Amino acid sequence: MSSRKRVEVCLTPGEYEYYKGEYDIVVVIDVLRATSAICTAFDYGIRSIIPVSSIEKAKSYKEKGFLVGAERKGQIVEGFDFGNSPYSYMKEEFKGKDVVLSTTNGTRAINIASDAPTVVIGALLNVDALSQWLIEQDKNVLCLCSGWQDKFNLEDTICAGVICDTLIRTGKFTSEEDSSIAAKYLYLSAWDNPLGYLKSSSHRRRLKNLNLNEDIKYCLTPNKTDVIPILKDGKLVKL
Amino acid sequence: MSSRKRVEVCLTPGEYEYYKGEYDIVVVIDVLRATSAICTAFDYGIRSIIPVSSIEKAKSYKEKGFLVGAERKGQIVEGFDFGNSPYSYMKEEFKGKDVVLSTTNGTRAINIASDAPTVVIGALLNVDALSQWLIEQDKNVLCLCSGWQDKFNLEDTICAGVICDTLIRTGKFTSEEDSSIAAKYLYLSAWDNPLGYLKSSSHRRRLKNLNLNEDIKYCLTPNKTDVIPILKDGKLVKL
Repeated sequence: MSSRKRVEVCLTPGEYEYYKGEYDIVVVIDVLRATSAICTAFDYGIRSIIPVSSIEKAKSYKEKGFLVGAERKGQIVEGFDFGNSPYSYMKEEFKGKDVVLSTTNGTRAINIASDAPTVVIGALLNVDALSQWLIEQDKNVLCLCSGWQDKFNLEDTICAGVICDTLIRTGKFTSEEDSSIAAKYLYLSAWDNPLGYLKSSSHRRRLKNLNLNEDIKYCLTPNKTDVIPILKDGKLVKL
Repeated sequence: MSSRKRVEVCLTPGEYEYYKGEYDIVVVIDVLRATSAICTAFDYGIRSIIPVSSIEKAKSYKEKGFLVGAERKGQIVEGFDFGNSPYSYMKEEFKGKDVVLSTTNGTRAINIASDAPTVVIGALLNVDALSQWLIEQDKNVLCLCSGWQDKFNLEDTICAGVICDTLIRTGKFTSEEDSSIAAKYLYLSAWDNPLGYLKSSSHRRRLKNLNLNEDIKYCLTPNKTDVIPILKDGKLVKL
């Protein structure tokens, strides 16, 4: 058999249990908007982000004096100062700070993946830099799509498809799972016009109803940054 | 809002819990090979099929004198006479008979869906007849892909994509879920050459290793039959 490394896609957090254990690096993807916000935060100089799954845990950090963001169903949770809009992290006050974040899908997926040897954060915003770094590592890679409330979503799948396609084109990686083949195909048919393609996407429509059109445009812009956030001892830091 | 009915796709049995309750008709799809075998069985005159999830239950029916088929991981289970090859149902001895069947993915998906008001069986073999019947019903439809060991697979998704596309083209149905949009896109890019497209599919490769190439070719042939198997009181019968 070939000595090529594998790059595969897990389409929802619920399927992760059928993939776990086989991969050296897990890339957590939540394009709209958690992992896009996380990349933006590091691009703007934040020191670390502690991802927490529950609102209770987020509250306990707030009581300790941390800057804490929390989002559920696309909106900032009452009692918190920010959610997962990338724009909320473009602030001078966040520079060099440690921040806590809890979101509907993204931070939960990060915690689900935390058993993997290496967990990094992927978004369209950092997809080329991340893909190049993954190629250099030469290890088995799993892209974990956060989905929307445990269901499949298009934007995470397309981002995973970019990573698969880029890694496979080097000749050093291969995909075997149908999910990875589907992600690659969906990316290849979407790439010329990702905004148009995602126009029909349910999640995008949901955010549009919340007047988050600027957020969506930003999150769907490839390669705004070279940062690669990585999980170290339960904290996300810049690689 | 529109009064159009919905046609959506659930990509794996594991996600069904996030869809259930909203649909009048669930179409269970396991192209390779359970639902293709079931369509073939009715096309060749079988009277009923009792789908059972466990091998234990299958054995207890065998002890009662039933004709019982059982398949796990692509092969006939020891002690049973047939599995889920469509060719095994093209026999004179099955005509007018009641048969029991347990398979890795398909019969489990049928049982998961059994809470729905109506459960029918879909495959590429009956996809046009089934789609026409669904259009006539004018009800909310969910296509439930059986997947492969709880993971996404391409052939079920493409079959669901055909159904979505056919129903939506009438103007009487609409899709809102990203999974349905993805299924439609994957079908549209695969349809000219489904065998070629699925060449890279993991499940197909697995069956090929078991010398089931003839089965695969048969199961990927659209519209060999007009039968629509339907679940009535725990038994599949011809509509």
